[in-house]
Amino acid sequence: MTVQHIEMSGPALAQALIHPQSIALYGASDDPTKMGGRPVQFLQRSGYAGRIYPINPKREEVQGLKAWPSLSSLPEVPDHVFVLTPTDTVLDAVRACAAKGVKLVSVLASGFSESGPEGIEREAALRDLARETGIRILGPSSLGVVNPRTGLVLTANAAFAEPDLPVGKVFVASHSGSMIGALVSRGKARGVGFAGLVSVGSEVDLNVGEICMATLDDPGIEGYLLFLESLHHGDALQRFAREAAARGKPVIAYKLGRSEAAAEMATTHTGALAGEDDIADAFLKDLGIARVDMLESLLEAFPLAQRMPLPSAQAKPGRRVGVVTTTGGGAAMVVDQLCVRGVEVQRPSETTMARLKAAGIPGSAGRVLDLTLAGTRYEVMKQALSILLDAPEFDMVIAVVGSSARFQPELAVKPIMDSANHSKPLLAMLVPDAPLALAQLTQAGVPCFRTPEGCADVVAAVLARRAPGTPALSKRGKSTGNFISEAQAHAVLDTLNVPHAPVLTAALSGPVPALPFPYPVVAKLCSAQIPHKTEVGGVVLGVNSPEALSEAFSTLRTRLVERAPNVQCDEVLLQPMCRGLAEVLVGYRIDADAGPIVMLAAGGIWAEVVRDRSIRLAPVNTDTAWDMIHEVRALQTLSGLRGRPKGDLAALAQAISALSQLAVRPALQVLEAEVNPMLVMAEGEGVLAVDALMVRTST
Amino acid sequence: MTVQHIEMSGPALAQALIHPQSIALYGASDDPTKMGGRPVQFLQRSGYAGRIYPINPKREEVQGLKAWPSLSSLPEVPDHVFVLTPTDTVLDAVRACAAKGVKLVSVLASGFSESGPEGIEREAALRDLARETGIRILGPSSLGVVNPRTGLVLTANAAFAEPDLPVGKVFVASHSGSMIGALVSRGKARGVGFAGLVSVGSEVDLNVGEICMATLDDPGIEGYLLFLESLHHGDALQRFAREAAARGKPVIAYKLGRSEAAAEMATTHTGALAGEDDIADAFLKDLGIARVDMLESLLEAFPLAQRMPLPSAQAKPGRRVGVVTTTGGGAAMVVDQLCVRGVEVQRPSETTMARLKAAGIPGSAGRVLDLTLAGTRYEVMKQALSILLDAPEFDMVIAVVGSSARFQPELAVKPIMDSANHSKPLLAMLVPDAPLALAQLTQAGVPCFRTPEGCADVVAAVLARRAPGTPALSKRGKSTGNFISEAQAHAVLDTLNVPHAPVLTAALSGPVPALPFPYPVVAKLCSAQIPHKTEVGGVVLGVNSPEALSEAFSTLRTRLVERAPNVQCDEVLLQPMCRGLAEVLVGYRIDADAGPIVMLAAGGIWAEVVRDRSIRLAPVNTDTAWDMIHEVRALQTLSGLRGRPKGDLAALAQAISALSQLAVRPALQVLEAEVNPMLVMAEGEGVLAVDALMVRTST
Repeated sequence: MTVQHIEMSGPALAQALIHPQSIALYGASDDPTKMGGRPVQFLQRSGYAGRIYPINPKREEVQGLKAWPSLSSLPEVPDHVFVLTPTDTVLDAVRACAAKGVKLVSVLASGFSESGPEGIEREAALRDLARETGIRILGPSSLGVVNPRTGLVLTANAAFAEPDLPVGKVFVASHSGSMIGALVSRGKARGVGFAGLVSVGSEVDLNVGEICMATLDDPGIEGYLLFLESLHHGDALQRFAREAAARGKPVIAYKLGRSEAAAEMATTHTGALAGEDDIADAFLKDLGIARVDMLESLLEAFPLAQRMPLPSAQAKPGRRVGVVTTTGGGAAMVVDQLCVRGVEVQRPSETTMARLKAAGIPGSAGRVLDLTLAGTRYEVMKQALSILLDAPEFDMVIAVVGSSARFQPELAVKPIMDSANHSKPLLAMLVPDAPLALAQLTQAGVPCFRTPEGCADVVAAVLARRAPGTPALSKRGKSTGNFISEAQAHAVLDTLNVPHAPVLTAALSGPVPALPFPYPVVAKLCSAQIPHKTEVGGVVLGVNSPEALSEAFSTLRTRLVERAPNVQCDEVLLQPMCRGLAEVLVGYRIDADAGPIVMLAAGGIWAEVVRDRSIRLAPVNTDTAWDMIHEVRALQTLSGLRGRPKGDLAALAQAISALSQLAVRPALQVLEAEVNPMLVMAEGEGVLAVDALMVRTST
Repeated sequence: MTVQHIEMSGPALAQALIHPQSIALYGASDDPTKMGGRPVQFLQRSGYAGRIYPINPKREEVQGLKAWPSLSSLPEVPDHVFVLTPTDTVLDAVRACAAKGVKLVSVLASGFSESGPEGIEREAALRDLARETGIRILGPSSLGVVNPRTGLVLTANAAFAEPDLPVGKVFVASHSGSMIGALVSRGKARGVGFAGLVSVGSEVDLNVGEICMATLDDPGIEGYLLFLESLHHGDALQRFAREAAARGKPVIAYKLGRSEAAAEMATTHTGALAGEDDIADAFLKDLGIARVDMLESLLEAFPLAQRMPLPSAQAKPGRRVGVVTTTGGGAAMVVDQLCVRGVEVQRPSETTMARLKAAGIPGSAGRVLDLTLAGTRYEVMKQALSILLDAPEFDMVIAVVGSSARFQPELAVKPIMDSANHSKPLLAMLVPDAPLALAQLTQAGVPCFRTPEGCADVVAAVLARRAPGTPALSKRGKSTGNFISEAQAHAVLDTLNVPHAPVLTAALSGPVPALPFPYPVVAKLCSAQIPHKTEVGGVVLGVNSPEALSEAFSTLRTRLVERAPNVQCDEVLLQPMCRGLAEVLVGYRIDADAGPIVMLAAGGIWAEVVRDRSIRLAPVNTDTAWDMIHEVRALQTLSGLRGRPKGDLAALAQAISALSQLAVRPALQVLEAEVNPMLVMAEGEGVLAVDALMVRTST
């Protein structure tokens, strides 16, 4: 018999997860070196103030605590139960939790959907149990939850054996359990602390998005670090990211899957199917999440992400970076890395150079302000920073400090700390090994970096964030669909105001119709059952007379009989032959992870050898569509390069935006739309869809 | 009056530079906090055993040492003089050194070619002085020389104030003086030591290549780390790299200039003009130098570079990497980063999995061997490593160690050290912050890495090294040249056996000739004075009859008069109109830094928007030419993709190799050759140069 719960969520969930008053450890071991014994040891050692109930029917005591024979024997309903027993016992354990009235359970064991058919079955059973009883499940494959603020070290991760967990303002949610330990040790070395860490595991119920969302009201949490192996449950992540953006709590993500091999690994590792990385990238950036490329950047990005406002429709924060340095070689590395990532390093203006000169600061007049000649002194650096931060040509300033940072932070590091409350962000990159100075800067809230690559990675990631746009109304989901005919697809394009070549449909069996457009034309079989017309020879190009058209009809009839004998098709679609300056692909689809997305890609042979495309969450306005056009390299050939004719990119932007409106017009029931090719004509002459393929929900 | 010296080089130079018996400090200050006072302090503090002569006419003593009034007053000719005085005194000081018979002088001051016309003049005077007197000059802008093995801390770099310089086997040569300090502090933190460090400065005389070359016989130096701002003096660097490769002493380079902005900065910083980065990249790789992308990789790359033999014509070391881990998430990061850099991560074979199973090691069967289930234990890791290292499917093995690395290195780090003397390289990447384990691994000579990015960067850089090929005979230099006519260029192509379209030259003023090839043809003005024919309308395409040809001659005569009135030209070149499957550009030139190079690039519009090209030092054989073809992405369209016709890539490889032979045929005196377009015909039908532009030495 199961007790019916009201499913816990939001602040109540956060309370049970990171501020529980009582914890039961199901299957706790007396041996603190075993996985099942670690949480008992860690919780006691860390001074957790709540009540701990080890459950172990074979013992009287577990590591000095009274052991309880069963969940039902407990004197209260614990806020959180951590199930430490092997895979095959998990279902029974969770069932017992539900029966007791427990609202939150974490599962350590692995061996679910990542491990073959039996595991998939086990996972389905666990999911059903959660749905039926309302019990919330963290995991399976969760190493637990840690809250350094309260001594809640509810984890089987051996990395938490060490004392003095660093306390801070950022909350970590990680698909990988081992990474929460790695982040703590690496954070400790950098003076970076945490407001909580959750090993999310394989998300049978609770997922990264929902967990983070639940904690948004916690005043001790000012930002989020995510270690992601996939974008599963992208809808929850999206809701969280939008809400975090609205509250000004920055989100930073490291996501595996840059390469196809890693995407495949994430699959075997957590049983998740990873998607294409550029879709994930667009998803994260469009939700205002700073996606970093380097592991250490995950620890270094928060202070800058917090200082820089997210762009909004009203205001886009500037991207012009000024660099000042006490060491030319060190600054050159930072500039090199920034520029490789497309971040513009701005030269000080003549006015700024004059102000520096007036202040008695001799500086070189190159791309960075090099203070080598002025000498490394507090007053020089302080004044130089003040002048640079006030200079209108900079939106942020990076100070690159040389050898003095190591043992004489008072010379060039302290003036950075003393200048950090300017309205513009001030960053520090230290060229020597200088852990103490880094710790001081971190303590003072100054974005600071151990390597030139990390510095550039973080700046680029923070600047790449975009303001979350209009949310889509079309939902992602497993809904399957069917192709519609090209004529039906053209009707959808009409509804959306996406320009297409004029079309006429006629009966394939009937007489050749009079045409409202001139020859030559193209004749195509038109049927929802023949989505890929060329595969059955269903397209005849360059038809230039009524006689030729009659012949084309006959050809199409023959090919239909020969190559698609089972297809009923009596419709033919006629179009004038059109030429443009270039061909592109404009697509829309509801991605399983990211939800509705719109894509612009180079057409032709090049698209096959280079992935030259731009992706955004749909819908997009024309401003965003212009950004997409600028990201597709092949389209540079339409920008008037070397006297070539300009393409009508404004019309292309309109068309991209128009097609993307499918995301807010769920009534049209289109799951996928691909206009390929879309012809881009000369400037002022618009664009023309000449073929379109769509999938509509089969409901 | 100057004394005539024999210029010092080779081992004698190395002796004076890093093992001097006596040093004079010209302009030494009594104040150890001043630039000019630091070397006195550092040398005394570090226990340098040679003789130190501070030269300061204003004092009796400098920091406790007897001060000497002048160079001439010294009781001996010191092995090395460090000139610490301001820019405007440098020439006189160096002149005095030469007069004394000093063979090696280092110059601290800046203010030479990087600082305007006056500085350029000063630098020329310094260069002349070196040439006239034979004195060797390090700098200007040199912060000096350090040899931690002997306590030679002859530097004004403040970073060397700290004691206990780490001693090791690698020698550092850096264009940037501040970087030698940064490398020492960062090396110290990682347990990496040095056999010497030289701040090379702006290379008025001694350059990176010659300095390193001089030290090659030093048995205490087993490898080289270069911090490069440019490839100036590429010929010396090339000689050194070839010799280092022959001796099996690996060279690792970090080179600024990935981005154009950094190339520009290097210019202002050292007065050098930096070249295109992909040329530099080809240069370094072709000389067997491991070019790393990250600063820290410079410190982490040596052990792997030393373990992995350079590829040779006889043997190319394999690239198949196996990964074993105690933490799935950590390994996934490494795999992701490796794959992004094109390094193949190999899956354990079934035989290997069976051997593991037989040894009682439960491991997952994904792309990496995940030992999570087996538990982190010495015996498990040791046996797993033994099986993987013996497995024929791997050429190197990376062990990714989780949290145990931090405080329990005996579990998974020690077995790595105990397995490291296998014939295949074994690498370690530690996921937590684990400085002690890293130091132990470094001490044991195991290539080990602090970050997944650094690990992947080093593996990719080491695997990207190529065996130095045939040295070019054509020398780089400032020799200028003149264009030759297209007809003359075709004659050079004939000499080299580069296939071209048939050509016929005729008198522009004369009658239309009979053609040895069919119409249609193209008619082009042919003159060394009209290298860019289209700019004067000097090309008529699609001429399809003798009458049309006569008209074309007349058109060309008119255009010549109108648009190039000062050019004497009575030659016209006729060619049949040819079409291929694709157009490419094949070029050869003597780069000012890199020397003779050969380039293959995509043709057409795409080449203008994306730099899709491959570069090698010339000459290349057809094997290398094939590698180049594979690097040009646009040429994938000729590989039979999606049923498209295959191009004759074998003929293209032949043609690339043939054109590159210009590098070993200096008698042809060609400085630059560009075949554009080269048509690639269908498989078996060859390639055809249809236009060629060449520059020949003007001697």
